[in-house]
Amino acid sequence: MPATDFSSAEYAARLRKTRAGMALQGIETLIVADPSNMAWLTGYDGWSFYVPQVVILHSSGSPLWWGRTQDKSGAAQTTWLQDSDLYDWPEEHIQHPDHHPYAALVDLLRQRGWTSGLGVEMDNYYYSAASHRVLEQAFGRDEIADATGLVNWQRAVKSEAELAMMRKAGQLTAQMHAVLRDGFRPGVAKNQLVADVQAAGIAGLPGLAGDYPAIAPIAPSGLEASAAHITWNDRQLALGEATYFEVSGCYHRYHCPASRSLYLGEPPADIRRAETAVLTAIEDTLATARPGVTCEDVAACVYESFAKAGYVKANRTGYPVGLSYPPDWGERTMSLRPGDTTRLQAGMTFHLMPGLWTADWGLAITETFVVTPEGGKALADIPRELVVKST
Amino acid sequence: MPATDFSSAEYAARLRKTRAGMALQGIETLIVADPSNMAWLTGYDGWSFYVPQVVILHSSGSPLWWGRTQDKSGAAQTTWLQDSDLYDWPEEHIQHPDHHPYAALVDLLRQRGWTSGLGVEMDNYYYSAASHRVLEQAFGRDEIADATGLVNWQRAVKSEAELAMMRKAGQLTAQMHAVLRDGFRPGVAKNQLVADVQAAGIAGLPGLAGDYPAIAPIAPSGLEASAAHITWNDRQLALGEATYFEVSGCYHRYHCPASRSLYLGEPPADIRRAETAVLTAIEDTLATARPGVTCEDVAACVYESFAKAGYVKANRTGYPVGLSYPPDWGERTMSLRPGDTTRLQAGMTFHLMPGLWTADWGLAITETFVVTPEGGKALADIPRELVVKST
Repeated sequence: MPATDFSSAEYAARLRKTRAGMALQGIETLIVADPSNMAWLTGYDGWSFYVPQVVILHSSGSPLWWGRTQDKSGAAQTTWLQDSDLYDWPEEHIQHPDHHPYAALVDLLRQRGWTSGLGVEMDNYYYSAASHRVLEQAFGRDEIADATGLVNWQRAVKSEAELAMMRKAGQLTAQMHAVLRDGFRPGVAKNQLVADVQAAGIAGLPGLAGDYPAIAPIAPSGLEASAAHITWNDRQLALGEATYFEVSGCYHRYHCPASRSLYLGEPPADIRRAETAVLTAIEDTLATARPGVTCEDVAACVYESFAKAGYVKANRTGYPVGLSYPPDWGERTMSLRPGDTTRLQAGMTFHLMPGLWTADWGLAITETFVVTPEGGKALADIPRELVVKST
Repeated sequence: MPATDFSSAEYAARLRKTRAGMALQGIETLIVADPSNMAWLTGYDGWSFYVPQVVILHSSGSPLWWGRTQDKSGAAQTTWLQDSDLYDWPEEHIQHPDHHPYAALVDLLRQRGWTSGLGVEMDNYYYSAASHRVLEQAFGRDEIADATGLVNWQRAVKSEAELAMMRKAGQLTAQMHAVLRDGFRPGVAKNQLVADVQAAGIAGLPGLAGDYPAIAPIAPSGLEASAAHITWNDRQLALGEATYFEVSGCYHRYHCPASRSLYLGEPPADIRRAETAVLTAIEDTLATARPGVTCEDVAACVYESFAKAGYVKANRTGYPVGLSYPPDWGERTMSLRPGDTTRLQAGMTFHLMPGLWTADWGLAITETFVVTPEGGKALADIPRELVVKST
């Protein structure tokens, strides 16, 4: 993701919003380990998040990028930062039993005099308990606040430029589903179908190249589909089985996930009934999702539509999406579920997931939408109906 | 990965080895959050590692799987555990600001009476600082030991069944490189080439289906290749540029990574010189890598071969690989580098990475090998030479 994707004014606005959030929590120096947040603040891109790396945002001045020596050149190529704002830890400390790279981060923070009022993302994949211990031992527990989600929350309302990225991701998602519908037939091995669908998302469309999504295709069939996160295997698609495919195109790290369900043969009545309930839930929910409505109101809309069809469901039915890196394309802030009273704002983007799972099958038809004054608008154009094929 | 991939005797041996490691560290109950370790112990597979989940291994009895309600069915389908050994945390606590799923883990540990002598993987992507804080507050800091790498170390020497998996992964890697060599030509967009290479790895070969690798293809060209972890973009391949592709096939979660370098046009003398140095380093190193030799001896072999060709390099030149999940296919135990005096054993598997990076280009030709009494044997059969094409 070249940092030229967004204007310098947009990056400046992102820093400003984040600093306002820091001020509210009394944080002077924010240590950002979530690669999605690092990218959103600076443009940094690379598959380097498997080693310690952060963006440091002080209450004033340029953010700093800090990472592995080998990745500094990548930071120079992908971020809008000056070379003098890039710092590295010694290459010889990579995955070393006796050295933790965060010792070098402590040195850098001390050099800058940023030793109090620190904020860290305590509940993030890329901020380990060991990393935290190094900082705690250096600066004391009282000087380190938990800032999990602080940057993520600033990302909730998307700019026009971001929405354009997500719509492009949605075009890729639609192309993936088109290839899926076309290739879905009895006897096809699941891994072959996944290979084709994934290739369609990366080869993309003219002028629209795809990136790797933050989650691999989830594509369970039959009994497997009663489990939520089975990826794929080499089994041939068989008549009489429901399959659902949860995939997302990815454009410059922005996502637009969508699931569709497919059936080989004549779908049984209970699956058709579930389909109707899910399709109704999507329409009702999109009509409801206007600015000012709460997350729990949106979720209630799904539950009510389900209840009319005789299904009881009360668990989370959606979450915000956008810029992301593996292992999750969600933003981990709000959720569409009871008790979440966050009010929607125009420009927020959610993956709406009204799925139904029984002991024997799972049915998932989902949409990524943006909140507008006229309600939720899907960001990808993909037929929603259960795909039914017999040959 | 169905748990039927390995015999129950093999799983029993894995538990025995791990418990011996626990006993050495005085750990009675090991909490395993690394998805690779979870899979190695129980067979568990699924893209569910973006939420809290662990395998709990007490000094006696069956391991327990603990995860999200929605994923319990996946655990029943993929592990060799009894249903009564599967535990879940409340679905409504998923990514919830006021509830941490680890509170339910605390309850489970208390029910079992496993409240002291705990071990946790403090430096793992899937064990956050927030998760650790929950356990510390419940059981006290003194009752929780850092067991990072404990299970990983037990995985170092591969069984014959595991080596068979890695050789199959190697066949997939070789197929990916064959597609790469074939498609690499001026004017081809990088993302199209990546789509084809990745599809080849997943579509696989007859009777040999591919899985998603733990790292997306790294495929930088020209100046980009001076950065170590740039993935890809939509730029067309151009004459006069070096590109390297680091990819791995994945078979039932086992990996066999290999990088190759490619050049369009007539390679300049310095790249040819680097190629010779790297190829010599690989041959010398494989001849050296016998049981009893230390990791640093193997690394020295690379450095010496480089030095003969006038290149100075002293950073890590390899690491163990095998079973893995994103974001890293390395095992994070030993390293081939100065100071690591671990002695090789037959059946250990390493990704040997004798790469050379300058400010203008990067050249990487790498091999995954198994240690045997006759030296290191490559697990994939891929021509090593710089691929040179002009049309």
